[in-house]
Amino acid sequence: SLLRLAHENYPEDFASVLDTLDFDLVVSAVRTLLLSEISYCAEALISLDTSTLARIYPFLKIPEWAIVLNELSDDDVVWLLELFPEPAREQLVARIPEEEQNDVRQLMNYPEDSAGRIMTTEFLALDENQTVEHAIEQIRGSRDLDPINLMFVYVTRNKELVGQVSLRQLLLQKRPAKLGSFMRTDVIPVHVNLDQEEVAEIVSKHDEVTVPVIDDNNHVRGIITVDDVLDVIQEESEEDLYQMIGTSDEELLVRDKTFKIVSLRLPWIMASFAGSLLVVMIMRFTERDVFGEDAARIFTFVPMISAMGGNVGVQSSTIMARLLSNHSLNFREARTSTIKEAKVGLSLGVVCGFMIGFFALYWGGLGMMLTVLTAMMCTLTAAAITGTVIPIAMKRIGFDPALATGPFVTSFNDFIAVCVYFSIVFVLRDYFTI
Amino acid sequence: SLLRLAHENYPEDFASVLDTLDFDLVVSAVRTLLLSEISYCAEALISLDTSTLARIYPFLKIPEWAIVLNELSDDDVVWLLELFPEPAREQLVARIPEEEQNDVRQLMNYPEDSAGRIMTTEFLALDENQTVEHAIEQIRGSRDLDPINLMFVYVTRNKELVGQVSLRQLLLQKRPAKLGSFMRTDVIPVHVNLDQEEVAEIVSKHDEVTVPVIDDNNHVRGIITVDDVLDVIQEESEEDLYQMIGTSDEELLVRDKTFKIVSLRLPWIMASFAGSLLVVMIMRFTERDVFGEDAARIFTFVPMISAMGGNVGVQSSTIMARLLSNHSLNFREARTSTIKEAKVGLSLGVVCGFMIGFFALYWGGLGMMLTVLTAMMCTLTAAAITGTVIPIAMKRIGFDPALATGPFVTSFNDFIAVCVYFSIVFVLRDYFTI
Ligand SMILES: [Mg+2]
Ligand SMILES: [Mg+2]
Ligand SMILES: [Mg+2]
Ligand SMILES: [Mg+2]
Ligand SMILES: [Mg+2]
Ligand SMILES: [Mg+2]
Ligand SMILES: [Mg+2]
Ligand SMILES: [Mg+2]
Ligand SMILES: [Mg+2]
Ligand SMILES: [Mg+2]
Ligand SMILES: [Mg+2]
Ligand SMILES: [Mg+2]
Ligand SMILES: [Mg+2]
Repeated sequence: SLLRLAHENYPEDFASVLDTLDFDLVVSAVRTLLLSEISYCAEALISLDTSTLARIYPFLKIPEWAIVLNELSDDDVVWLLELFPEPAREQLVARIPEEEQNDVRQLMNYPEDSAGRIMTTEFLALDENQTVEHAIEQIRGSRDLDPINLMFVYVTRNKELVGQVSLRQLLLQKRPAKLGSFMRTDVIPVHVNLDQEEVAEIVSKHDEVTVPVIDDNNHVRGIITVDDVLDVIQEESEEDLYQMIGTSDEELLVRDKTFKIVSLRLPWIMASFAGSLLVVMIMRFTERDVFGEDAARIFTFVPMISAMGGNVGVQSSTIMARLLSNHSLNFREARTSTIKEAKVGLSLGVVCGFMIGFFALYWGGLGMMLTVLTAMMCTLTAAAITGTVIPIAMKRIGFDPALATGPFVTSFNDFIAVCVYFSIVFVLRDYFTI
Repeated sequence: SLLRLAHENYPEDFASVLDTLDFDLVVSAVRTLLLSEISYCAEALISLDTSTLARIYPFLKIPEWAIVLNELSDDDVVWLLELFPEPAREQLVARIPEEEQNDVRQLMNYPEDSAGRIMTTEFLALDENQTVEHAIEQIRGSRDLDPINLMFVYVTRNKELVGQVSLRQLLLQKRPAKLGSFMRTDVIPVHVNLDQEEVAEIVSKHDEVTVPVIDDNNHVRGIITVDDVLDVIQEESEEDLYQMIGTSDEELLVRDKTFKIVSLRLPWIMASFAGSLLVVMIMRFTERDVFGEDAARIFTFVPMISAMGGNVGVQSSTIMARLLSNHSLNFREARTSTIKEAKVGLSLGVVCGFMIGFFALYWGGLGMMLTVLTAMMCTLTAAAITGTVIPIAMKRIGFDPALATGPFVTSFNDFIAVCVYFSIVFVLRDYFTI
């Protein structure tokens, strides 16, 4: 019945079904398909979730993987190999056909997450002196290329990229016309070493379908197609999300291995622990040496004040980190944003402060109300300001501002909240009974 | 000098510069460009950040906007109009040329965020009995279309979509051949009412460059191109991010208006306030009626325990929400994920528990150490479990699981953490001095 499903659906949709199935079923389905419909099976495999792929890897033998790799284009081969353990890679590359092998090795030589790593060498580049006729013959000879790889033919002069012609132009121009005579020169190339995230930004901003990838000599080494850019964007946003919560997207590959997951999360949890330890120490100190028998009553409000400060701080820092990841921020804009968030924090502080203030009035009288109200206002304003300033500072010193929403910064915010609250209590205690 | 910059750069790059400039400079640059280089100016405007656009809107007059709209394709017009206040829209539509007006009105009639809203009517569809020759003539007659809109010619039978031919096929086929004789039928259409997020998923999964948009009669009403899908993905991820932190992406449009921002954030902050109030109430109750003079010492550890629980809970719920947004989860997988996160939570709880336990041992003796250690282990395990279960439950009852990482759930986690901690203290107090 799984095989009937495969017959009736596109490989990508079949892959989505496999992603949700029992794992041994997936393996047996892939095995069976591999015997009869190799190319369909390869397409389905490459469309699986990375976590499913990483899990499936040990269940197919090297010769079976080799069959799959033979069906795929060079960029997909590279993408798949990256998921496999290092030693298996060379074994697998050695088993694919000679010419394809060179392409794959060339791509694997570029740095990880660079344009060279995600490009494909399956494209057409012709000299500017070639005719439309010749270009059409070349296109006729490359029937195995995806339509997207042939949206443009790149035009070179002495092997250097100078322009591109679209298939529409080839269709409408006279056969003997030279490519150089009607090519468009507004082509936007990217360098082989450019980071894939920046490639994605360029493609998205200029609404490109394919961008040529050039080396230092301005020779075209490959092209990047928009379908792979979509995958890059998803990969990068997953990476950011995992980083924001204090772990890494490697979790997607390790799946159920508790120890590995713990080791990915522990450093961030420890950073947060250090921040929280400061809070515990302050509370311990004030309990014994400052607040005495009022301590418990004062401490009652700490969790609320630090929780509300945490919320407001995370809002400010997430919004700021997002802004900073899109484009650089100058000093004046940074100030404007900080003032805006401070005002919002203060406003929220006033609302929350009065609400908890009424409870405090009922429970402990006017002094407690005033203390809690002031503390809430100051804490939320301070949280909004630190929430805005930390991502800016992180960007300045070269860190990813997305880290600013992580566990460590949250704990740091807690620490600030408690310090603000206790300072206010300390001052107001002299004037009111709290 | 801004104008020289405009001459030397693509409009999209010029827009990126404008996004970071002083606002009055932006307005005057746009005004000047509008007089001389209308089409360049329109391209730059449409590439600005939505927040810049929303801010610029009142500074150009209706006739000036009309000039801009005349330069844009119908889908870009609709996208721009959506940013403007309702009453201005009709005024502006009335000023664009008659045929274009109908296209725009038709698109505006589809529901917000649907395929119909983001598609363009600029495409080519021909009957299956038309020849290659005829198709090429049609292509020749539509020089104003972007190359991306003409990647495929859609093929119809009695006006119903039956296939597509690529430009490569047109280039290689003989002129008198009929489209129906060599078209590909593996075209993937989307319905006009399909949500844009699902459109983006389909395009991304099937590596399409354009998808045709059909109505109930299987007639092609427009096409969606991948460049606009990239914008949809960015828009949706921004929407999710703002929702995750308890606000809305409307903030991007209101910019500096404190009151409006506060009103967007307040409902979520209030939900979180309610959760925190429960914590305050429990602490107040235990302080007076349960823990007596030990209360302050016991309370000292509350911020740390709830902060660590918060971190672990957010990790679990974010990962779960991400998983659920990609595909549906069956019961067995839900159980597996919950067990996995519980194990991770317990492991982190053991590590953090022993670390804070040593401090507790030094400060308060064995009883306090055992209490804190047990509490940390139980709290982090509980946080991991609620973190996994809440998004699953939310999805079941029809909410967006992304809400599960928001302020309310964080407060709810705090509440659970405090309950767990106090229960453990309450039980262990009988056996140890704490
Ligand atoms: Mg990669
Ligand atoms: Mg774009
Ligand atoms: Mg590819
Ligand atoms: Mg692909
Ligand atoms: Mg990266
Ligand atoms: Mg990144
Ligand atoms: Mg039109
Ligand atoms: Mg929306
Ligand atoms: Mg929209
Ligand atoms: Mg894809
Ligand atoms: Mg468009
Ligand atoms: Mg666009
Ligand atoms: Mg959404």
